[in-house]
Amino acid sequence: MRVFAPATVANVAAGFDILGFAVGEPGDEVTARLAEQPGVRILRIEGDGGALPLEAERNTAGVAAREVLALAGRRGGIELEVRKRMPSGSGLGSSAASGVAAAVAVNALLGGPLRPEELLPALLEAERVACGTAHADNVAPALLGGFVLVRSYRPLDVVRLPTPAELWCALAHPQLEIRTADARRILRDRVRLSDAVVQWGNTAGLVAGLLLGDYALIGRSLQDVIVEPVRAVLIPGFARIKEAALDAGALGCSISGSGPSVFALARGAAAARAAGDAMASAVRGFGLPCDVWVSPLGGRGAHVVGAEDPS
Amino acid sequence: MRVFAPATVANVAAGFDILGFAVGEPGDEVTARLAEQPGVRILRIEGDGGALPLEAERNTAGVAAREVLALAGRRGGIELEVRKRMPSGSGLGSSAASGVAAAVAVNALLGGPLRPEELLPALLEAERVACGTAHADNVAPALLGGFVLVRSYRPLDVVRLPTPAELWCALAHPQLEIRTADARRILRDRVRLSDAVVQWGNTAGLVAGLLLGDYALIGRSLQDVIVEPVRAVLIPGFARIKEAALDAGALGCSISGSGPSVFALARGAAAARAAGDAMASAVRGFGLPCDVWVSPLGGRGAHVVGAEDPS
Repeated sequence: MRVFAPATVANVAAGFDILGFAVGEPGDEVTARLAEQPGVRILRIEGDGGALPLEAERNTAGVAAREVLALAGRRGGIELEVRKRMPSGSGLGSSAASGVAAAVAVNALLGGPLRPEELLPALLEAERVACGTAHADNVAPALLGGFVLVRSYRPLDVVRLPTPAELWCALAHPQLEIRTADARRILRDRVRLSDAVVQWGNTAGLVAGLLLGDYALIGRSLQDVIVEPVRAVLIPGFARIKEAALDAGALGCSISGSGPSVFALARGAAAARAAGDAMASAVRGFGLPCDVWVSPLGGRGAHVVGAEDPS
Repeated sequence: MRVFAPATVANVAAGFDILGFAVGEPGDEVTARLAEQPGVRILRIEGDGGALPLEAERNTAGVAAREVLALAGRRGGIELEVRKRMPSGSGLGSSAASGVAAAVAVNALLGGPLRPEELLPALLEAERVACGTAHADNVAPALLGGFVLVRSYRPLDVVRLPTPAELWCALAHPQLEIRTADARRILRDRVRLSDAVVQWGNTAGLVAGLLLGDYALIGRSLQDVIVEPVRAVLIPGFARIKEAALDAGALGCSISGSGPSVFALARGAAAARAAGDAMASAVRGFGLPCDVWVSPLGGRGAHVVGAEDPS
């Protein structure tokens, strides 16, 4: 069973740990097969340059597969092949995409005993292994597609937010790696109440903008006064990249996940492409290679793209 | 020109300083007349037990009237009469209601040179005089009606949020006074980032619940982990009052403004009345008198209720 899961933008501006959305590309593919030998084995990983562990217990796809087996109450064996189609440590939810693709593939292989939402606890555990923290704002949109609010972690409460039809995203990935754990470590434990008020004004504004289809409000709300100012130092030339996106007509621009990728939202495909090109030019101006992807928001979550005949 | 402005619930659960809504009752009435003598004078205040200053420069209605004159570029004189129909220091936006009623009355008296949104700077200045801080989550809903998001203070950005048709509010006012300045003073300057994340998850959830018409999500989102736990100590028996509202079927319950009034949201008039009665019983059980008001959300903002013929 071959499953694609999309890249995702988490920590959407003021929505640190609670807002994420799926994009159309890039994404990872995982193939899962039933095996005689009990337990989960990863046969190979393509596209990671040998960086990711083949050992299932240390790999997000392996942990996700194991947890889905446990949730479904099955004891069989699973073999996985992982095709990375995006860089790790890029802030694009790479570990989430592999984990989600593996979970959905295993669930499909078992005949679909679990509903998509029921896979979330397995995916949080896989994120904990991969990133050190069990955040849900990558796995939930990678699984469900579209724009997702993680209202609460205890208990887990995930809400899909409809998005306006012309909302597009441009992603720029400067080719350097930031470990999620490092990006977490530099955050401060305490924040000023006055900054927190600004932040929840903007989270509320962004949600209102999405649901009212108010593009200008979305743009005004794409501001993060707490996390972005701290993490921006990890991204060479972040201020210039952001300025380039806004000058090119983006509604707003911020760090994708824990970086170094940067996302911009724009009204319409043309504006998104212009923002993507502008961000990439800025990154290349600092001497770094840069990948760019442009896609409409509200894309599909993880889905089966092929099945082998088991006979 | 006689204008009514409604009471308002500010600091709606997790929406400290950013979310407020208007109720149907109570509210204040202000009558404004053109006068020969330049400047603003307050001829009398009814219903305040003599507590509020008649001196225009120290009174929220007087300051609002003065600021509207200045915004409209007029030099004439204004006489005001204020009829308080709700208690001061109650957490129901009493100062905001008087200021808004005065501002709307003066603007109407001048022939309406300013749009409602243009009155907001005048009203913020009046709040600063009355409460020591220029918060907008009372004046904006008292002016505009309905449920209002104050996304940003600099620049001021106010967004009206549609609310689902069956959403009702119960207000319970235990008869003791809390000064807004005191309620502000006990708040901590810094908050834990982990608590702030919970808080903006709930602000986002509440806005999503309102706009999606999802009553259960509204209920789950009516949680405040930052301000309510600190301010609850000022309200005798708050935990019991809240429990009574929830047991009676309210979706959620929190402090109105800076207290001591408590609000509950409920689906439908009957549930709101039950929650209001339950809260009042709990308050009276602590030996305090308690007023109760029940009204649907989405009520009108300030409006003219009568005009004298100037001839």
